[in-house]
Amino acid sequence: MTERTAEWAERALAEAADRHAPASREEQVLERIERARRRKPKISEERVTLAHGAGGKASRTLIEAVFVDAFANPALQPLDDGATLDLGTGRLVFTTDSYVVSPLFFPGGDIGDLAVNGTVNDLAVCGARPMYLSAGFVLEEGFPIADLRRITASMAAAAAKAGVRVVTGDTKVVQRGKADGCYITTSGIGTLDRPVTLGDTQVRPGDAVIVSGPIGEHGITILIARGELDIEADLTSDTAPLHDAVAALLDAVPVRMMRDATRGGVATVLNEVARGAGVAVTVDERAVPVLPVVSGACELLGLDPLYVACEGRFVAVVDGDHASAAVDALRRHPAGEGAAVIGTVEADPPGRVLLKTAFGGTRIVDLLVGDPLPRIC
Amino acid sequence: MTERTAEWAERALAEAADRHAPASREEQVLERIERARRRKPKISEERVTLAHGAGGKASRTLIEAVFVDAFANPALQPLDDGATLDLGTGRLVFTTDSYVVSPLFFPGGDIGDLAVNGTVNDLAVCGARPMYLSAGFVLEEGFPIADLRRITASMAAAAAKAGVRVVTGDTKVVQRGKADGCYITTSGIGTLDRPVTLGDTQVRPGDAVIVSGPIGEHGITILIARGELDIEADLTSDTAPLHDAVAALLDAVPVRMMRDATRGGVATVLNEVARGAGVAVTVDERAVPVLPVVSGACELLGLDPLYVACEGRFVAVVDGDHASAAVDALRRHPAGEGAAVIGTVEADPPGRVLLKTAFGGTRIVDLLVGDPLPRIC
Repeated sequence: MTERTAEWAERALAEAADRHAPASREEQVLERIERARRRKPKISEERVTLAHGAGGKASRTLIEAVFVDAFANPALQPLDDGATLDLGTGRLVFTTDSYVVSPLFFPGGDIGDLAVNGTVNDLAVCGARPMYLSAGFVLEEGFPIADLRRITASMAAAAAKAGVRVVTGDTKVVQRGKADGCYITTSGIGTLDRPVTLGDTQVRPGDAVIVSGPIGEHGITILIARGELDIEADLTSDTAPLHDAVAALLDAVPVRMMRDATRGGVATVLNEVARGAGVAVTVDERAVPVLPVVSGACELLGLDPLYVACEGRFVAVVDGDHASAAVDALRRHPAGEGAAVIGTVEADPPGRVLLKTAFGGTRIVDLLVGDPLPRIC
Repeated sequence: MTERTAEWAERALAEAADRHAPASREEQVLERIERARRRKPKISEERVTLAHGAGGKASRTLIEAVFVDAFANPALQPLDDGATLDLGTGRLVFTTDSYVVSPLFFPGGDIGDLAVNGTVNDLAVCGARPMYLSAGFVLEEGFPIADLRRITASMAAAAAKAGVRVVTGDTKVVQRGKADGCYITTSGIGTLDRPVTLGDTQVRPGDAVIVSGPIGEHGITILIARGELDIEADLTSDTAPLHDAVAALLDAVPVRMMRDATRGGVATVLNEVARGAGVAVTVDERAVPVLPVVSGACELLGLDPLYVACEGRFVAVVDGDHASAAVDALRRHPAGEGAAVIGTVEADPPGRVLLKTAFGGTRIVDLLVGDPLPRIC
């Protein structure tokens, strides 16, 4: 998940008294964003904490207060999974992600295929055809060459599966104790061949919220693989390329936005949508696909699966009239065979994600400040 | 310096008995490269060492035996500073570099402007106009936010100076003791607007070798900044964007190849040229611009300035008839005002770099296995 933020939108929406002004919906949203931008976010901590890397509220504050403040430009500003660039000759999407997952090898994958699939997926959910990847390695002195071979082999296999090429790279080595084996940063380029416009601001009341498969498998797999918990489970990471399933969805129905649900899980994506679009998202807990082993582990650990990272699932908001066609289209692909409609978009309360629980109640699903699971990707 | 290798070429050239065959020079080089590729390089170590990250022979073996073997494809194969991509609508250059310099702040710069300038320069020396950058941060828990702000501010200033935009990014945080403050991986995209073809294989006997300014300032600055040496010197890093000087050179004269002289210094670049083109490069030691403080520090430390990293200098090979026009063009730019012709390209001995010393002798300038200065960039 490349970083993005919607905190400005959150603040903007708090003053959404002008919802019924004569300006168009998009003009209103853009104006509110602009207004919020003028009030700079503040970071209260003096030092980086693990929460700053967890994808939740702390991450956003860091991004806004430090990175966006330093690098402000129109291509960065939407803080989507990738930047859309017009090079005069055609539109591209450009994205990057660093991978620091621990352990490096886990059931169903390793840091290598995670790094390829993650960048492929960021391109795909931006509507692009993934084409070229770069790979930057930071290796710790003493890292076994055999492990590096295993990682690069799985990167190569993942790249072949996704139809992309690793075309450029770099390696740095740091002393023992200055890294944790191997960190990888992949960047990706994809072409925008379709005329679709995707993004949180395209979302409107009446739309349907879809998830492409069961959630939380990657996060729980990593947690178990760390061996710190007294749990054994027959579970593998969901790490997978999503470009085919995404293309099938785009071909089938009008899509408003898509985002892969990595750090922070589905709950974080839905909060970004609700805040970015100034809408309410209502999720039906019983409709959210979760494997029994994942829900069981979550119960034991006191985690909500909605916040647990996936590495091969995405959230899509589509025209509500085409919800079942969207699910049908996804289910024809291996990466989407567990797809389900999990909720709807409503007008009020703007900026909120509400969960209709299995017991008939309703609760707010907010952003977390940090994440209970550091170094999940 | 994005990685590249010429070891295959080295081995190929060892059997250059067919130098006078009727096939064209370029065909011969390509054929030899192809033949060498069929014999896979081997890596003898079982674990990563600092030498694997130093840009010398050990780095090359790692790249060939692990990365190229895993990711083999035509765009990666030349192992240039960037990959040239044809997206159907126009040609792009795509490059990446990870930065792990220690210390993070040093006289004349910091890891931030180094990360921007390095990627800008990799695009520039591939003949591209640098346009967009991504930035992936790996931060150590506890890293001061004030330092991060200082780094991003210097990245922003460097980006503005080079006319590029940081359009996408990512941040991961690892626990204390799992990094060294801050590592940055930048990737860059540039457009190839000029019809020039650049590369080691374009180099031919009679060409002139130019360096854009005095060498070794960055490496010696870092070494002194570490405080491990009992040396004080009024020296700053040469970190700088090279795109304007490169463009001026390309406009002025027929250029064969360019490469920024980072890890491994000018000596490593020249060895790559000699091996990649199957030519000899003869360097006149007295013509190589070195500041007195750099040559003094090198003498004290037993280093050869030809191997010391620069971060704002590049080597260019140009048509020998245009050598002084090339230097004149460079000297009109701040980044090239210390430019000088330092050598010539000859036919024999192929694959070798020879230094005519100030004392009238001649010695071979070979590739180093590792690098006396780890974590220089």
